[in-house]
This record gives sequence, structure tokens and C-alpha cells, in this order.
Amino acid sequence: MASKAAVPQGAPSEPPKTCKVILADTIAKKMLAEVQSTLSAIQLPRRPTLSAFLANDDPHAYQYAEWSKKTCEEQGFSFNLVKVDKESLEEAIIAANNDPEVDGILVYYPIWPANQGHQDRYIQETVSLAKDVEGLCHTHLFNMYHNVRFLDPPANLKKSILPCTPLAIVKALEHLQIYNPILAYGNRLYGKTITVINRSEVNGRPLAALLANDGATVYSVDITGVQLFTRGSGIKALRHQVVDKPDLTLNDVLPLSDVVIGGVPTEKFKVPTELLREGVVCINFSSFRNFDGPAVKEKASIYVPSIGKVTIAVLLRNLVRLIANSPRQEGTSDDAQKAREGAFKDD
Amino acid sequence: MASKAAVPQGAPSEPPKTCKVILADTIAKKMLAEVQSTLSAIQLPRRPTLSAFLANDDPHAYQYAEWSKKTCEEQGFSFNLVKVDKESLEEAIIAANNDPEVDGILVYYPIWPANQGHQDRYIQETVSLAKDVEGLCHTHLFNMYHNVRFLDPPANLKKSILPCTPLAIVKALEHLQIYNPILAYGNRLYGKTITVINRSEVNGRPLAALLANDGATVYSVDITGVQLFTRGSGIKALRHQVVDKPDLTLNDVLPLSDVVIGGVPTEKFKVPTELLREGVVCINFSSFRNFDGPAVKEKASIYVPSIGKVTIAVLLRNLVRLIANSPRQEGTSDDAQKAREGAFKDD
Repeated sequence: MASKAAVPQGAPSEPPKTCKVILADTIAKKMLAEVQSTLSAIQLPRRPTLSAFLANDDPHAYQYAEWSKKTCEEQGFSFNLVKVDKESLEEAIIAANNDPEVDGILVYYPIWPANQGHQDRYIQETVSLAKDVEGLCHTHLFNMYHNVRFLDPPANLKKSILPCTPLAIVKALEHLQIYNPILAYGNRLYGKTITVINRSEVNGRPLAALLANDGATVYSVDITGVQLFTRGSGIKALRHQVVDKPDLTLNDVLPLSDVVIGGVPTEKFKVPTELLREGVVCINFSSFRNFDGPAVKEKASIYVPSIGKVTIAVLLRNLVRLIANSPRQEGTSDDAQKAREGAFKDD
Repeated sequence: MASKAAVPQGAPSEPPKTCKVILADTIAKKMLAEVQSTLSAIQLPRRPTLSAFLANDDPHAYQYAEWSKKTCEEQGFSFNLVKVDKESLEEAIIAANNDPEVDGILVYYPIWPANQGHQDRYIQETVSLAKDVEGLCHTHLFNMYHNVRFLDPPANLKKSILPCTPLAIVKALEHLQIYNPILAYGNRLYGKTITVINRSEVNGRPLAALLANDGATVYSVDITGVQLFTRGSGIKALRHQVVDKPDLTLNDVLPLSDVVIGGVPTEKFKVPTELLREGVVCINFSSFRNFDGPAVKEKASIYVPSIGKVTIAVLLRNLVRLIANSPRQEGTSDDAQKAREGAFKDD
């Protein structure tokens, strides 16, 4: 019969840990396995090759380049790290554009100081669209901001390339089941409120756009203020719209957010834990820890402390996609061609 | 090169539908398949048998009984529908308790008028614990409210039975991926805010308790007011606590809710659509439509208009669990015994 003891037998003796810490490695491994199986189906006769140009002296860029090289080589890719001075960079990229042995081109930014940012933009446009593994050429950026997923309508066999870090965060949110696969593709973040702290042209702004294009309500925050990215009332619009929110601050939007993504590139910045909702999902993509680790684990349901390894996996994924997008070569079997046309078609 | 047209080629020509309507049938089919495979592993020598007692003249109960009978028989179960007058009900249940050919007992409530509700409770306690397919005996209710999952600690081989409609809604929320499988078992609703409109003893109150035990912040609403069910700050408690919220009304809690569950048994009541969050998940378990269908589809990301078929699948699942919980019989193979001990161990 019923036990009426105050502390019931068979009750859990302590509650399960309330915060799940998910390491980038876990997510990256799953993606790398997918990259390998796609690569083998494509039947490329040689090792896929990435040329990476380092023209600044940022130690984080150098460290990231070393990690990228290691992962590339472990995965059977060739990785040429080319150190070059700023003045020779354009010429070196043009040579790589014309080299049939180079499949993808990567450049470490920023190169010029912020007030000369147009020179970085000029270099981004120098990279051939067909080798733009970072998705930074205008056509790729245009497609991303306009929620256009293919380069070759109406055939829709060649997927447009998305920038690596924003796509890495999308892939992390898919892994964390924040994208709800029950919903229609393209709407899987509907009902979710997300704050992205960083609105750089290479990371924060494209990320806010991608998340809003997928149906989220996104607060994009930087030192200049808050912007709201959404597909409008009832997500009826085809792509995101941006509205300035001069009356809001980070402190106003944190308590509203199901997901908080930090990308502030400084040691000094920390997200104020006390303003986070209980059960929030926190992701850090800065080289610095934007969250106070021990405190955030008391409040969040999921915490992803870094994203770098996922970014490298996305880089290889983008490279395989560029190869899949390239014109059919003589000697490519029908099966291999089919694999190219279907490569990563799920996103 | 980059297309700079204002309306990009290759853009989706219209956005995908923003509301996914999920029918109970879809969820029920998946569960019935699991029931069948568990049943076959258990190797019962005869058809499992449910005796259902109808002692009221509620047309909904009769209709539900007819549906249950049909599904039972399609699934290879025997279903004895016994119509009996109130005064003979206790005796009839005792006979079924003692009948070795009866595996589970079901009674349609309410039987007596609300002001004589203690008589319904008396009947619930008359049903043998070993045949209580609805989870309404005190031991089952006690375990549910105390978040105790097994009947036989510390061996933990016999799962406690949960009431059918509340468990059907939990199963629906799992199917809809509102339970996040990335999180630790027992915490998978952490971060979710849920409103349950109905606080009856058989449905709304146990449902609010189950959802809060799994980590959600639950507003339980009925005509007497709002109560908050949670596991406390940071879900540190082992089981839910209940706090009255005299200052809150349904209108205050709807805009806060990720999920709204309606179970108000009247034609007149409708959830005010204008107070729902965009992207909300709506589930109706009343025999009447608590949501204004066309309007809710403009606002919700997911809408489940009814749950009855899932409830019937849970009924059969509970019956198979009761059989799995019963003492080992002579002639039961080791494989079958193992299947019994592992039956539905995932919840």
C-alpha cells in the first residue's frame, strides 16, 4: 500500500545537474563525420586543398590557423598556410584563384585597422566566388541577407556558402534542439527569442540575420545600441527586417531571451548573470569568455563555452560544398555527380 | 557575378506555413507501434484484457469508451465494456480485481455529482493497485506528486503508473520536441513556461505537477485563480512546489507562456488568441475546442487540436506496463522476463 513517509523511498536522492555543458568538440565530430562521408561519395581524385592567407600579426589568428591546419590534415585535406605581407596579399590571392589545385581560399581578418575596413572588403571581393570558403564575397553575403539558399535558381543544385562562425552557431543550435525539427524548414526558430552580443560584419550581423531568417526574434546588441531582427508579425515576411530599438539596452533584452550568444572580443566584458532567465541557453563564440562560467552553470539549462572547433568543421564542410558546386569534370561518375548535387542539401 | 536585382532569383516565392497542425493520430501511431513491440517481447500466452466500467450516462464517456474498444480490438487487446448502475459498481470492480483473466480496470468518471466527489475517490481506491490502468489509486497518485518513478525501490524494475490524459500530453510534448532530449532526464522542460487551463483532480492538477517535476515553470489556471507549480529557484528541489498567485489572472500568464494547454470542458470558453505569444505551442485536451482554430493558426508555431487518440494509446501502454509489473509466472522465458523489466523504461 501507499508509503506515507515524508521522504518517499525511491525518490531521486539528488536532482540531476541542471546545466548541461556541451563542448564544441561533440558538435564538430558529428559534422566532420558527415563531411567525410560526403567527400568520399564525391570521389575527388586528389586531396581537397585549402590555401589560407595570414597577413596580420594577430596571435589569435595564428593560433586558429594552426588548429585549422591540424584538423584539416587529420581529416585528409591539404592546408597551405601562406604568410604574406599586406601589400602582396592581392597578388597572392589572384594566383590562388587561378591555381586549379586550390579548391578553397581563406583569409584571416582583420588585416587593416578598423578605419580602413574598406581594404578588408576589397580583399574579400578579390577571392573568386567559386573558392570563397568563408562566404564573404558579395554574392554569398547578398544571398544570406536575402534568405536565398541557392546560387543557380531555378535548378537549385548549388548551395550558397554561409560564413563559418555564424553557420557554426546555427549548427550548434540545431544540435542543441533549439531549432525544432517538427516545424517547417525555414521556420524552426519560430517562438524563440535570441540575443546576439556583437554586430560585426563578419560574425554578429550575419548571425542575427540568419537566426531571424529562420523565424527567431533576435536582439542584436553592440556598443552602439540594440537592433531587432525579425521576419515581422507572424513571421509573414520572406526575410528579416531590422528596426533600431533606441529605448532598449542589453539589460532589457537579456531577461526576455531563451538563448544568449556572446561574441565580445575583450577580457573585460561579462554577460550579467543575474539578468539571465532561469533555463536560458548560453553560447560563447568570443576568444574570451563572455560568461562567468561557474555562475552561468547555476542559471542556464545549456552552456556552450566555445565554438572554434565547430567553425573549423564548417570550414571543411564549406570547402566540400565548393567542390560539389564546381562544374562536372570529365571522368566524374554519375553516382559522384549525384552526390555533388545532393551534398549537405539539408540546410 | 553577384545579382543585384531587388527581388532576388531563387528566393522562396512564399514563406512556409507558420503553424504546424499535429494530429493526435500521428503521435498515437508511434506509441501504438512501441506498445506492440513490447507486448510481443513479453510473450503473454493470451490476449491482454481490459475491463471498463460505465456507471454514468455522459455521452462523451460513452463515445470515448466506443473509441477505446475499437482501438483496443484493432491492437489485439480484449475490451469488456461493462454497463452497471452506481450501486453495483463496487461489487463489479471487486469481482474484476479477483478475476485472473482481467489485466486492467478502467472506470469512467465522474460518476457521482461533484458535491459527492468522495464517492468517486472511494471507487478509485477500490480498484486493485495491480490493475489500476489509469494511475488513480493513492499509491500511484502519491508517487506522481512526489516525483517517485518506481513501485519497488531500490530494485526499480516496476514503473509506477501515470494517469492517461496527463501522460498523453507529456508524450505529445515529447513528440513536439518541447522536452529537450539534450537535457538530463527529469529536467527536459527547464526554461519552458507552460500554462495549463484546468485544475481538475484527474487531469489539470496532475498534469501541472508532472510538467513542473520535469523542470517547467507552470501556471495552473481555473475559475478559482492561478497557482504556480515549479521546482523552485534553479529547479533545485526534487519535486514541485505550489504557490498561490492571487495577483495573476489568465490574461497575465498567457503572454509569458511558451506552451498553452486548454482543458476547459465547455463550449463557451475560448483562449483569447490576442494574448498568446507569437510562435506559442497550443494543445487542446478538452472535448470542446478551447482555441479558436483559424485564429490560433495565425499565431502559434504548433497546434494540437485534440489529444483523445493519444490518451487511448497511453491506456494500452499502461495496461502493458501493468502486465510487465505483475509477478513472474511459471513458464515465462528469461527473454520475456527481461522484456518485462525493461518495458517503457525510458519514461
